[in-house]
Amino acid sequence: MPILDLSQISIVSRSSYPGQLAEAVSGRSWQALGDVGGITQFGVNLVFIEPGSASSLRHYHLEQDEFAMMTEGELVLVENEGEIVMRPGDCAAWPAGQENGHHLVNRSDKRAAFLVVGTRTLTETAIYSDIDMMVTDTPGAENNFTRKNGSPLTADQIGDRK
Amino acid sequence: MPILDLSQISIVSRSSYPGQLAEAVSGRSWQALGDVGGITQFGVNLVFIEPGSASSLRHYHLEQDEFAMMTEGELVLVENEGEIVMRPGDCAAWPAGQENGHHLVNRSDKRAAFLVVGTRTLTETAIYSDIDMMVTDTPGAENNFTRKNGSPLTADQIGDRK
Repeated sequence: MPILDLSQISIVSRSSYPGQLAEAVSGRSWQALGDVGGITQFGVNLVFIEPGSASSLRHYHLEQDEFAMMTEGELVLVENEGEIVMRPGDCAAWPAGQENGHHLVNRSDKRAAFLVVGTRTLTETAIYSDIDMMVTDTPGAENNFTRKNGSPLTADQIGDRK
Repeated sequence: MPILDLSQISIVSRSSYPGQLAEAVSGRSWQALGDVGGITQFGVNLVFIEPGSASSLRHYHLEQDEFAMMTEGELVLVENEGEIVMRPGDCAAWPAGQENGHHLVNRSDKRAAFLVVGTRTLTETAIYSDIDMMVTDTPGAENNFTRKNGSPLTADQIGDRK
């Protein structure tokens, strides 16, 4: 049956962020529900954020639509226009190419979770709002982190956790 | 802000099913969260099913992946392999092209709801499992319901609600 047994799906945690930048998401983990269910056109993850951690560095995507629904706890959505608290049932959508950097931060004392959907595309670029960094994905060369002008990140930059 | 105010989003209800076939989904309505949020690469709907109604006629898609998470109440997922009850937090995935017809039926006495995601594609064909019907979408010719051999549905068939 295509129903997913969440109790049997691995919870994974990793980050491709270079250097110290990964610390911002050290309390992030997820279950790859879409992958486990065999779908490929969009990704669906159930993401868990521990207190003090964030869903990502604040960013936006150039090619991929994103959508999220809160399922547990409380997270603060941080965007260009400010901050808003999200609770279970709250939803947000980020159309591809809209230059509105966003992430979800857990400032509570309990674990929080959300379901997130993102299109799968062969190529992608994400732009980080608060630091001089972008990441490009092309077939065979994924997670290519650079400065926004394409030049290599400096050691100094990837120790920068603002 | 991309956060969606669900209290302000219209709840719509309609069906393109021909003839009496629409009765199976007469208690179905939804909020088009993805459309309201401005995303176009996949659809996201919050779907409400009243007691006695179903999410759709049992079907599968040839081109589009589908994913659902229960958010309220209790629905029975009916598939080729049988039936299983789904409750809030339960998830299911239906990869494009897998010939496993599915729908969600409300056999309880309370409203139920689920979030559903489906890829947007220029063309699509859905095959109905329990009746001799399919539907094709092509640009400019959507919701073209026919028999599985492409011939027109008969009046008799579209009064057939099995």
